[in-house]
Amino acid sequence: MAIQSISRCFPVLAFVIAVHPGLAQLNSLTREELIRYTAGNPYERFPDGRPKVPAALLKQLEGLSSEEFLGAGTRGSIHFVNGFQVLTPGRKLIGRAFTLQLMPLRVEVADPSAAAWKEQGNTRPLNHQSAIDLLQPGDVLVVDAGGDVSAGGIIGNNLSYYIWKKTGAGFVIDGAIRDLEDIAPTGMPGYFRAAVPPAIHGLMVTGINVPVRIGKATVMPGDVVFGDREGVNFIPPGQVQGFIDRGTITLIHDEWTRLKFDQGKYVSSDIYGRPRDPELIREYEAYLEQRLSPEAYQAYRKRLAQPPAATPARPQR
Amino acid sequence: MAIQSISRCFPVLAFVIAVHPGLAQLNSLTREELIRYTAGNPYERFPDGRPKVPAALLKQLEGLSSEEFLGAGTRGSIHFVNGFQVLTPGRKLIGRAFTLQLMPLRVEVADPSAAAWKEQGNTRPLNHQSAIDLLQPGDVLVVDAGGDVSAGGIIGNNLSYYIWKKTGAGFVIDGAIRDLEDIAPTGMPGYFRAAVPPAIHGLMVTGINVPVRIGKATVMPGDVVFGDREGVNFIPPGQVQGFIDRGTITLIHDEWTRLKFDQGKYVSSDIYGRPRDPELIREYEAYLEQRLSPEAYQAYRKRLAQPPAATPARPQR
Amino acid sequence: MAIQSISRCFPVLAFVIAVHPGLAQLNSLTREELIRYTAGNPYERFPDGRPKVPAALLKQLEGLSSEEFLGAGTRGSIHFVNGFQVLTPGRKLIGRAFTLQLMPLRVEVADPSAAAWKEQGNTRPLNHQSAIDLLQPGDVLVVDAGGDVSAGGIIGNNLSYYIWKKTGAGFVIDGAIRDLEDIAPTGMPGYFRAAVPPAIHGLMVTGINVPVRIGKATVMPGDVVFGDREGVNFIPPGQVQGFIDRGTITLIHDEWTRLKFDQGKYVSSDIYGRPRDPELIREYEAYLEQRLSPEAYQAYRKRLAQPPAATPARPQR
Amino acid sequence: MAIQSISRCFPVLAFVIAVHPGLAQLNSLTREELIRYTAGNPYERFPDGRPKVPAALLKQLEGLSSEEFLGAGTRGSIHFVNGFQVLTPGRKLIGRAFTLQLMPLRVEVADPSAAAWKEQGNTRPLNHQSAIDLLQPGDVLVVDAGGDVSAGGIIGNNLSYYIWKKTGAGFVIDGAIRDLEDIAPTGMPGYFRAAVPPAIHGLMVTGINVPVRIGKATVMPGDVVFGDREGVNFIPPGQVQGFIDRGTITLIHDEWTRLKFDQGKYVSSDIYGRPRDPELIREYEAYLEQRLSPEAYQAYRKRLAQPPAATPARPQR
Amino acid sequence: MAIQSISRCFPVLAFVIAVHPGLAQLNSLTREELIRYTAGNPYERFPDGRPKVPAALLKQLEGLSSEEFLGAGTRGSIHFVNGFQVLTPGRKLIGRAFTLQLMPLRVEVADPSAAAWKEQGNTRPLNHQSAIDLLQPGDVLVVDAGGDVSAGGIIGNNLSYYIWKKTGAGFVIDGAIRDLEDIAPTGMPGYFRAAVPPAIHGLMVTGINVPVRIGKATVMPGDVVFGDREGVNFIPPGQVQGFIDRGTITLIHDEWTRLKFDQGKYVSSDIYGRPRDPELIREYEAYLEQRLSPEAYQAYRKRLAQPPAATPARPQR
Amino acid sequence: MAIQSISRCFPVLAFVIAVHPGLAQLNSLTREELIRYTAGNPYERFPDGRPKVPAALLKQLEGLSSEEFLGAGTRGSIHFVNGFQVLTPGRKLIGRAFTLQLMPLRVEVADPSAAAWKEQGNTRPLNHQSAIDLLQPGDVLVVDAGGDVSAGGIIGNNLSYYIWKKTGAGFVIDGAIRDLEDIAPTGMPGYFRAAVPPAIHGLMVTGINVPVRIGKATVMPGDVVFGDREGVNFIPPGQVQGFIDRGTITLIHDEWTRLKFDQGKYVSSDIYGRPRDPELIREYEAYLEQRLSPEAYQAYRKRLAQPPAATPARPQR
Repeated sequence: MAIQSISRCFPVLAFVIAVHPGLAQLNSLTREELIRYTAGNPYERFPDGRPKVPAALLKQLEGLSSEEFLGAGTRGSIHFVNGFQVLTPGRKLIGRAFTLQLMPLRVEVADPSAAAWKEQGNTRPLNHQSAIDLLQPGDVLVVDAGGDVSAGGIIGNNLSYYIWKKTGAGFVIDGAIRDLEDIAPTGMPGYFRAAVPPAIHGLMVTGINVPVRIGKATVMPGDVVFGDREGVNFIPPGQVQGFIDRGTITLIHDEWTRLKFDQGKYVSSDIYGRPRDPELIREYEAYLEQRLSPEAYQAYRKRLAQPPAATPARPQR
Repeated sequence: MAIQSISRCFPVLAFVIAVHPGLAQLNSLTREELIRYTAGNPYERFPDGRPKVPAALLKQLEGLSSEEFLGAGTRGSIHFVNGFQVLTPGRKLIGRAFTLQLMPLRVEVADPSAAAWKEQGNTRPLNHQSAIDLLQPGDVLVVDAGGDVSAGGIIGNNLSYYIWKKTGAGFVIDGAIRDLEDIAPTGMPGYFRAAVPPAIHGLMVTGINVPVRIGKATVMPGDVVFGDREGVNFIPPGQVQGFIDRGTITLIHDEWTRLKFDQGKYVSSDIYGRPRDPELIREYEAYLEQRLSPEAYQAYRKRLAQPPAATPARPQR
Repeated sequence: MAIQSISRCFPVLAFVIAVHPGLAQLNSLTREELIRYTAGNPYERFPDGRPKVPAALLKQLEGLSSEEFLGAGTRGSIHFVNGFQVLTPGRKLIGRAFTLQLMPLRVEVADPSAAAWKEQGNTRPLNHQSAIDLLQPGDVLVVDAGGDVSAGGIIGNNLSYYIWKKTGAGFVIDGAIRDLEDIAPTGMPGYFRAAVPPAIHGLMVTGINVPVRIGKATVMPGDVVFGDREGVNFIPPGQVQGFIDRGTITLIHDEWTRLKFDQGKYVSSDIYGRPRDPELIREYEAYLEQRLSPEAYQAYRKRLAQPPAATPARPQR
Repeated sequence: MAIQSISRCFPVLAFVIAVHPGLAQLNSLTREELIRYTAGNPYERFPDGRPKVPAALLKQLEGLSSEEFLGAGTRGSIHFVNGFQVLTPGRKLIGRAFTLQLMPLRVEVADPSAAAWKEQGNTRPLNHQSAIDLLQPGDVLVVDAGGDVSAGGIIGNNLSYYIWKKTGAGFVIDGAIRDLEDIAPTGMPGYFRAAVPPAIHGLMVTGINVPVRIGKATVMPGDVVFGDREGVNFIPPGQVQGFIDRGTITLIHDEWTRLKFDQGKYVSSDIYGRPRDPELIREYEAYLEQRLSPEAYQAYRKRLAQPPAATPARPQR
Repeated sequence: MAIQSISRCFPVLAFVIAVHPGLAQLNSLTREELIRYTAGNPYERFPDGRPKVPAALLKQLEGLSSEEFLGAGTRGSIHFVNGFQVLTPGRKLIGRAFTLQLMPLRVEVADPSAAAWKEQGNTRPLNHQSAIDLLQPGDVLVVDAGGDVSAGGIIGNNLSYYIWKKTGAGFVIDGAIRDLEDIAPTGMPGYFRAAVPPAIHGLMVTGINVPVRIGKATVMPGDVVFGDREGVNFIPPGQVQGFIDRGTITLIHDEWTRLKFDQGKYVSSDIYGRPRDPELIREYEAYLEQRLSPEAYQAYRKRLAQPPAATPARPQR
Repeated sequence: MAIQSISRCFPVLAFVIAVHPGLAQLNSLTREELIRYTAGNPYERFPDGRPKVPAALLKQLEGLSSEEFLGAGTRGSIHFVNGFQVLTPGRKLIGRAFTLQLMPLRVEVADPSAAAWKEQGNTRPLNHQSAIDLLQPGDVLVVDAGGDVSAGGIIGNNLSYYIWKKTGAGFVIDGAIRDLEDIAPTGMPGYFRAAVPPAIHGLMVTGINVPVRIGKATVMPGDVVFGDREGVNFIPPGQVQGFIDRGTITLIHDEWTRLKFDQGKYVSSDIYGRPRDPELIREYEAYLEQRLSPEAYQAYRKRLAQPPAATPARPQR
């Protein structure tokens, strides 16, 4: 019987890809290259080398919002993109980036790519579904279609349903989707540039799990994707824990700030950004210590005492 | 008493218009011309020649979405327009196009037009309300104002209320509306480019029930209008039945696809676009036959067996 | 104890500002100037000269919508702006304008401004929070940032919370906000151009309670702000009462119009804009008289009998 | 021999059109209708009723610019459109409007239109060249393609060469052209929205010499077209003489103004808009009288003495 | 005789303004304030306090281009604006900013402003020409109309002629001009957003020689204006000399770089940004010393030896 | 002596790249891959596998324009992009594509890339100049910066001078340039999105001579670049000869068409698109045969006699 379960078919495909890197798509990274370019990942990896930020860590991100860690204009290597239509405002998109790169079709280029794909033992043709078939729970499909919404909807109601069922996460598509009328009621998170009736056409796959550009962001396979009403952030795995730590402080700070505002006794700058009155400072620190675990508070004080890690204005490379 | 019921006054007006075609508006179609240019209509017609797709057929469209019949980029003569503000996302707009063409006012052109209108026995002045007064149940008011939102709101809370009460359908306005604050809570379907406070000004009526251009669509009087979250489709009467037939198949196909995805055993391309495994194919065909009536299934198989009707890439005319 | 209540600290600041006008910000109005340029205000004033339209009058605006007084394209000095993102569609923004002008930072200009601010006895630095600290109940913060959304979010979750608590009104920001994810659920009214993660940067305060330009509107301190789904109106205090009077007539007129439409006996132009049949006219006038107080109806008839106040097409000044 | 000269073939076609009005294109005007809607034309007409402003009058327009008659914001029925790419800045486009209306192709509508065209005895198919074949010396081809630049270039190097040779005027195309590389060096005047490689496709002819909308202008067949660096004006024939008269005054006024500025003795408002010093006024009037013919000066004084023709703010029609 | 020469009338007006500061326009700076906010100006001043960068220094700017001093992304307080239509590409605009602020007209605000203007002894009404009358040789008229091109052309052929004659510099208008057809052939430098036929309307003067916002730039009265093909820079007087010094070095550096490229022996990074080969470095330094005066070269080496002046990332003020 | 000639240093670098493919940039193609994906190239290749269309063939393209081969909407794999600012309208850009891909900088990704580049023996850092140093005569630098003009000018006056000297061709930059004031007078061909003062910043090299996306075009290394006033075409090497053959026919056809139009005897459709009169057809064919060589004419007739090569509407890959 030809039908295989997902769990059986996937490792086989992954293996094949690992053996013949770079032949079937124009752009590709070997396992070795993927590890090299995501060397800052402190967690385990998928068989193909993609970082696998633990699910438990992803879960902790749910209470945060992007501002809580971005600070005032300092964003390091956390890239942010907006200008999307947001499928379900109020529901955050959190997961690991699985990237797909599409470029305008050139037949004489796509043909050798298709031939190589077949030589690798694949029985289904190479197309955008080839990437969707490889999605794992917790993955976010990130599609670089160069923002072109005239090439039709890259996914519709059926594939978005599959993605939702399979990943529990969602998608970021720098291009169009279709079947918005059917997808909207599902309540899944998704980001896209437009919804149009025609299906995908005139594009070819040029890379799966390669670095892609989405607006002004560079997205690496395995990046943590964090989307809210404003847009989508792509976070290197090595920065996630720090994000959560600082975000937790910010949440408590905002909580305390609002409690003080509720008292109606202060003008805004008595309390926010930070209190200056010594007694208010003491009150805030006590509140913070009580809300954090004692260890977390000590760690926070220690971080503050250190000089900030140098974040030089790097020259263009 | 001067007040006439709508049902009494309309045929009289229609009669007058049929008798003196082309005098009161710059552009107009005689009954003969309207029939000629909508010759593919298989249904009955209004007294002025406009196709009257049966209400029962319109009702069947409610369960469909635009993608279900558009297919992958092939759209024949079904024109689609987007870029509207959608008054009530989630509520479809379905009805027969009643068109109104407006152009920037030129006094020396509008004056003879107004004089001709009066000569025809009309006691109220020729303006955009002249068209609204002619709306019938099931009509969709389609206004070509060239996308100009600086000419004020073509309808406001009172006229939109009248349209909603009278037609039970809604409106498509390639221009602005006003009174959005009052209209939004009604839940009626409507498509427009912007909402602005000023009322309509600086425009003149140049045609009622003539072909109009809405974005990249040509709309004929009597077209079936189908609007959803993505935009608005204009469907020639002769294509509606085929739309419903194919759409029903697609609905069942999607239903089956999702059922298989729910089983969690397949990657997306095992099932979608279509299964390749013989057993899955049999399973799908059986499902389809059972969900369709036997006659519908046979008709569907027969259609598939025929070569597709030639849809040549026509030269520009 | 260093903490002062808002009621205690505000008059002190206001006093200081009144004493040293025009020194701390580049643009400023003395109390005398503010009174001169808002001479049409018939109501009391704040200590700094800003008109204080009575809260009871603001309350009466709630039932109206902008079209009810704007009429067909004649807008006098009531300026309207749109193109905003509306934080809470369906909830009107009503209050008194408190203006803040920001311009791109020039250090050598901002430094003497900061020095002057300090010389005036202010202990907190001059920045956008200086204006927020001065807000009073019923105020709407109106920020002219020239529409620049690349300068970060001028307010975020904490300051918007403060504004909501303090004013009970909301904000109009011709620039960006941040923390949309946290602000959206509050249900407060607000108008802004975009929501972005970074905080405000690269701007300097150039005026507090000075005339500002928001899109194509000039906003004076103390203007009545009226925002709905379409956009925001700025109304000179001297015109508010007339707005309410005419708006009330319009509301009743629309009420009657819909009642007639509900009867299904009329085409739209039998009833709207106004009936022409003598009996219908009588019916409408009786309805209007009954719904208005007798005095209000007499005043309305008297206004109609007068020639309209000349509203000449003024030359550019 | 089958080849006919232009002069022989045109009257035949015109005759055919006059006999079967409104059959071949969706929109059309009979000779009678065209005369009715351009009743203000004081000059002779083409056989099909289109106004024929004398060539000598068109010649007098060459020295003017659009501002010279538009005045400060009062534009009556002279419609102005901008946003074009200007083929040859510095070379004015002056001539009589010959209009062509194109709409997105619907096969089932274009087929009966093509059939009717053939029934009228035409041996070449109905397409955009049908209109170009009818152009006369002094005509400006005005094409309403709804601003759609994705439908390809409506004319290229060959047809623009033909137009230039035949009309000596040029074109206004609310859509795209192609072959810009070849057309640019010819130095002919032309206005278009974009230049793209593909040829025209997906459009159908819906009217020849009917009223068309170009941006926010309504253009009537026979309007005088006047294009300069800023954009294109469409002038009703009945207003051309007045335009020339007022424009001549303005030219002399500007001449005198600059002469005075050259003296370096005045600030701008001593002289412009008009002098206030009695001696300067006398000097100006003397200059004007000397530069105009005595009759023209008397006529000008007489016009000034009359109350201005009422140009009421007309209600929307 | 009522006609006064420009040189006689200007000081009188300036005096009047100095005596009654802030009464006639909504925004205004006293002489004292203008000096305070431009304290970094090392040169003499106009009677009203506006910095007067010497003409000889302005002359030296002619050989430079904006990149020569902007460096790689570090722009300090030199603000740059683009997006203009450039009247005469290839001709630089260099001069001292004379600012004019316009806002949308509100009659009840403009009336007291006009009254105050008259009380000050002005016999001509307050309007945009009031500012133009005050222009001095070397001034650049900088008009903040908020980018609104629907308010008509702020200057036309006559006023632009006056400006060109009087200042020898030109204009920067964040709004529209008119009469482009006449202005273009003059060859004067000018920057504007659009050219439209109607004259200025619906605006009022709210400030003369006050800080204005042009796009993302803050412009102070007396700033040096430097416009080229890319856009317009506004330079604080205190930075001009440094700009010239660094720009001269850059010009020589580019000269040498091209000479080396002309030899065809090097790849680009052998030479540019800077040579690394010791011999090439020596060659370059010798070239630079020879082309600069010895003093200038020593001063340059000394500057390099110093640590760079701190340019901290300043907090928002 | 450390200075090497260009001819000496280039082969060494090329060798190094061929040996360690894919290590230094995120995306890269081995020589083997580059040959595979450009298999249709009938000409010789550069050492790294890039197709090298002969210079003599490039020369023949000079007389053509893009429309001459694109035909009416059928574009095969020849991709066209517009929306650029054209540096020197009227001067064609013709050469072989040398591609450079840039993405927004992520430090933790750029660092391992820089390390690998150094390991390969490169002494200069990896940046955009690394690609410029590799340019050969006849190359066109094609930079994919994702259209981002906020990342500064990728090249300025010095590097553009180098490119012009070295290649004799020019550049296509989907991003910004700087120093437009200096570059414009050189008369070199170039295409770019904007000109801005700041230098390149915040980008990293992610590929040299890899497939890139420029707008809606996919560009392969070695493509023939053909730019004119309308935009830029990218032509697979295997299609260039056919382009020239068909373009030559079109040139002669247009020549003949204009000669006939010059006679003034025909309406446009007598002659264009093609004559229908048998005698005119004979005349045209004779003209064509005489202008082409006899062999070329025979080959052309033979091509016409064959059925067109199938250009199926390919499914999305």
